[in-house]
Amino acid sequence: MFETIFENLKDKSPLVHNITNYVTANDCANILLACGASPIMADDAAEVAEITSICDALVINIGTLNSRTIESMLISGKRAAELGKPVILDPVGAGASALRTETAVRLINEIRFSVIRGNASEIKILCGGAGKSRGVDVSDSDSDAETVFENAKRLSSLTGAAVAVTGKTDFVTDGIRVAAISNGHPLMKRVTGCGCMLSSLLGGFCGANPDEIFDAAVCAVAFMGLCGEYAAQNYVGTGSLRTGIIDEASNMTAEKLNRGIKIEFRQ
Amino acid sequence: MFETIFENLKDKSPLVHNITNYVTANDCANILLACGASPIMADDAAEVAEITSICDALVINIGTLNSRTIESMLISGKRAAELGKPVILDPVGAGASALRTETAVRLINEIRFSVIRGNASEIKILCGGAGKSRGVDVSDSDSDAETVFENAKRLSSLTGAAVAVTGKTDFVTDGIRVAAISNGHPLMKRVTGCGCMLSSLLGGFCGANPDEIFDAAVCAVAFMGLCGEYAAQNYVGTGSLRTGIIDEASNMTAEKLNRGIKIEFRQ
Amino acid sequence: MFETIFENLKDKSPLVHNITNYVTANDCANILLACGASPIMADDAAEVAEITSICDALVINIGTLNSRTIESMLISGKRAAELGKPVILDPVGAGASALRTETAVRLINEIRFSVIRGNASEIKILCGGAGKSRGVDVSDSDSDAETVFENAKRLSSLTGAAVAVTGKTDFVTDGIRVAAISNGHPLMKRVTGCGCMLSSLLGGFCGANPDEIFDAAVCAVAFMGLCGEYAAQNYVGTGSLRTGIIDEASNMTAEKLNRGIKIEFRQ
Repeated sequence: MFETIFENLKDKSPLVHNITNYVTANDCANILLACGASPIMADDAAEVAEITSICDALVINIGTLNSRTIESMLISGKRAAELGKPVILDPVGAGASALRTETAVRLINEIRFSVIRGNASEIKILCGGAGKSRGVDVSDSDSDAETVFENAKRLSSLTGAAVAVTGKTDFVTDGIRVAAISNGHPLMKRVTGCGCMLSSLLGGFCGANPDEIFDAAVCAVAFMGLCGEYAAQNYVGTGSLRTGIIDEASNMTAEKLNRGIKIEFRQ
Repeated sequence: MFETIFENLKDKSPLVHNITNYVTANDCANILLACGASPIMADDAAEVAEITSICDALVINIGTLNSRTIESMLISGKRAAELGKPVILDPVGAGASALRTETAVRLINEIRFSVIRGNASEIKILCGGAGKSRGVDVSDSDSDAETVFENAKRLSSLTGAAVAVTGKTDFVTDGIRVAAISNGHPLMKRVTGCGCMLSSLLGGFCGANPDEIFDAAVCAVAFMGLCGEYAAQNYVGTGSLRTGIIDEASNMTAEKLNRGIKIEFRQ
Repeated sequence: MFETIFENLKDKSPLVHNITNYVTANDCANILLACGASPIMADDAAEVAEITSICDALVINIGTLNSRTIESMLISGKRAAELGKPVILDPVGAGASALRTETAVRLINEIRFSVIRGNASEIKILCGGAGKSRGVDVSDSDSDAETVFENAKRLSSLTGAAVAVTGKTDFVTDGIRVAAISNGHPLMKRVTGCGCMLSSLLGGFCGANPDEIFDAAVCAVAFMGLCGEYAAQNYVGTGSLRTGIIDEASNMTAEKLNRGIKIEFRQ
């Protein structure tokens, strides 16, 4: 299955519209190019609907949101939904400020997302759970596997989106199926943008497989984890690790992905 | 000739004002430093005219344009033209949205550019050609060498600017002279920002050689291509390739440039 | 002493709020993660006070300032001061435009900074010295060690902040104590963001050591210099050097820092 998902990405080379933050935009663009997709970043309200309409998927990342770009996110997200194109949400830092929480909730209320990807704290906040996240990091108390699992399923049933929660083990669920993916490496937390890059990859994988969102999401999560895992094998420092993750993305094959994926299906 | 152009860059260390996108701004700054120039990024309408006035060249890149920065582009471009400083345009994604096309056309109508650099689709759009670009990528139908060549000459005669079209073969023309440069490597398309970096380099090379715009443009195009070519010789992945391109820029010599350049003059 | 300062950073993993430029934001985030701190970038006026309040320090960098973010800088800086949290200023390009000079002066007048870090030209401008900086670079005439030393002391007594001036030799003073630090490497000037990264590191070191600002600032300056020094030992080009600096940051130990620091105390 994952081989087909990945081959579709390579064959279709989907164009992915990213409304994203300026901290990791370069990494997001480079990992999309590395995996075989094509990125475009555009965030002005006067053009985002048009850009979305020529793309295969839209990724909304609120990492450095502002009043101007929030409007653009709403416009683009609605257009993508109208056109039936996959829309991904990365609610970076939801819980860290009222603006982030409210924006993420508003986006979820007004846009039909295909996938929502966050860490355990962000996903919990979007479920209406209490608590405060530690900036853009996860709180330890939110990371218990059973809690993560329950929150992901709950957010999925609330929104109709597949939900991907990344952490020590990553979970992907569409409310019915649940996959637990244990690829990745602890050192990835020391490189900024691994979460953002995964969200952009979700745009690529879902853009090329719009009728297989759950499988595409699982495949993207495993792909990102494997890039980190392989890159960590040659670890000399976190600067090189960042470069290595992109290198691994550009060298990934369906065969390597299929062989390396560590996945367990649950309910 | 190219040795003198490059030596001037090294000797003068021109200061280059970039109004550019947040995806590749870091790469643009680093390649300017690598080649011996000095970058400054500034995009607020309240300061751009002043920043332009202390610089040797201005680069306008519409990659992540917005209403605020479009105004700054117009202000800066006019000031640079008044002061007789080279101005470079990179019309990223012209054709992908009305905003991009209209902004690029408006910039060309209101500012006297020294060099316009784009891919075949962007240059075609600016000639008034019909068609739609594929995001920030080139359409295959626009890439025929003769078409590219004709569009570049036409845009040059319409604007008075030298036009540099990058693709499998790069063309530079000032409407009379035409150079076909076949440096570069196909892998460069898998690293974001190779076009943007070249546009910033054009600012450096033209800023140091304001009376030799055509030669400076040819030299910058060959310089960028050679950096990619040399970096691709040690290819292990696209992340390392990005780093390697900057490394090669910092290690380029006039002698290596002169020896490596693959150029043919046409009419 | 420096071992304790650095161990505190490792133990506390301070959360650092950066209102910074889009050119080097990725490097700032990555070097904070590399040294053991945690970054958050947020610049919208509607959330910055709240973000600052959950963080251990605030870094204000005016590298790509605009009217929207200037307001955010003022809001955040005041909130941090109210809460007694360290605030760092990096007046990038002060002197290059009236907007930059006036903004830096306004920030200094309205916010109680813990540390101000700049190059010799920027610090001179903030002392009310005449002159014009060369974009974001230092003017040669401003780099005389005695002049640098006097300007730093003067700015410190004017503002109550510790002042760190980076150049061939770096100076840190709190108006009374003066440390001259001769770590670093000339090649660091060819990588964009070494100054910005140091300013973000100052946020990390001061955030973990809020009662020892002078020592924390000295330690951060030496840390950054040593990263550059060690990375330059394996120099192959400026692209790799950038990566190497982050690698060295992630591999730094209190022992290496203590052994490598080249410091002299003056008056």
